[in-house]
Amino acid sequence: MNALKRKCQAMINSENLQKQLSFLTEIDELKQILRQTVLLKDLRQENDAEHSWHLAMMVILLSDYSNDSKMDVLRTVKMVLIHDIVEIEAGDTFCYDAHDREQKTEKEREAAIRIFGMLPDEQANELRLLWEEFEEMKTPEARFAAAVDRLQPLLLNFNTRGHAWLKHGVKRSQVIERNLHIEKGSVELWEFARQLIDDSVRKGYLLDG
Amino acid sequence: MNALKRKCQAMINSENLQKQLSFLTEIDELKQILRQTVLLKDLRQENDAEHSWHLAMMVILLSDYSNDSKMDVLRTVKMVLIHDIVEIEAGDTFCYDAHDREQKTEKEREAAIRIFGMLPDEQANELRLLWEEFEEMKTPEARFAAAVDRLQPLLLNFNTRGHAWLKHGVKRSQVIERNLHIEKGSVELWEFARQLIDDSVRKGYLLDG
Repeated sequence: MNALKRKCQAMINSENLQKQLSFLTEIDELKQILRQTVLLKDLRQENDAEHSWHLAMMVILLSDYSNDSKMDVLRTVKMVLIHDIVEIEAGDTFCYDAHDREQKTEKEREAAIRIFGMLPDEQANELRLLWEEFEEMKTPEARFAAAVDRLQPLLLNFNTRGHAWLKHGVKRSQVIERNLHIEKGSVELWEFARQLIDDSVRKGYLLDG
Repeated sequence: MNALKRKCQAMINSENLQKQLSFLTEIDELKQILRQTVLLKDLRQENDAEHSWHLAMMVILLSDYSNDSKMDVLRTVKMVLIHDIVEIEAGDTFCYDAHDREQKTEKEREAAIRIFGMLPDEQANELRLLWEEFEEMKTPEARFAAAVDRLQPLLLNFNTRGHAWLKHGVKRSQVIERNLHIEKGSVELWEFARQLIDDSVRKGYLLDG
């Protein structure tokens, strides 16, 4: 590389780094977005950053249970790390509220364009496409990401004796319907989830019906 | 596979899954371990799970700045996701307190054996070795993980006008000494960090000296 090319590359790198750090600063806000699920120790509401970290740990540890043995673990980890970032603008929606769920799609799509758009073009595209892929739940990575995204709140609900379920009057049939997706990502995790749901009803953590 | 082999495999899978889910439930506690750095919006103390998520995002977005172009991104992401898990037992130590830092090494080593030991053997070993590798800061992955682990609190400190630095009376020379490691992971990120530190002193976010 000659001197001019090196100088240009340094300027491009510096501009890219500024964009990346602005984005990384902006997403600090994910730590403020509260979910309905509560933490085991103090029953405070979990936030999206904590939830995303927990999902990434699940992907790393449970990837062998994916229905597709060729699933790309890094892509799946990226997906769960970024899957809620749009909620910085669009907010969290309780998953058992059907009306809110429809409304939020458009808001989230706009948020994805704005927030991921803060990054250099290539990364902006990569993350926006990854987020869309997650939402569409068609690839092995997106299906497994969706599976752990459902399973994690089940674990927290079970281990807090159904705190969020009972508070919102959620019923077994709603939990089954909402979490059926798990099976598309992992038959084994879905089998476990079903046992957990049955057990929750037996123990009075979840309403029958 | 014959029927008996299949049955055995199913039993092994089921036992492994129980261990993995116990571990994943145990580490919910990481969301309770508070750090000294505060969040941008409300100046509340960040917890280790939020911090680990933020580092994973940094690895994904900034890996091109690694001094080693062959760095394995997935291994580095795993490292930052798990690097603080030992603090569930050993607690967080403010990085500018030298005395505490020495004491904590042994406590953390014991914690690593106990906590990662909850997992099936293969994963227990993998995570314990990854954590040790992170602590030793000798491989490209460990050096880059250490670099973002230093850079993230710098970003939060700068963007909260030096909140934690001023509270603890931290000086520029301490910040330089503590963060020099960044250079071993990424010359470019260290250059940026130095500018941020200089700027912080100029703006009164960090004590000179």
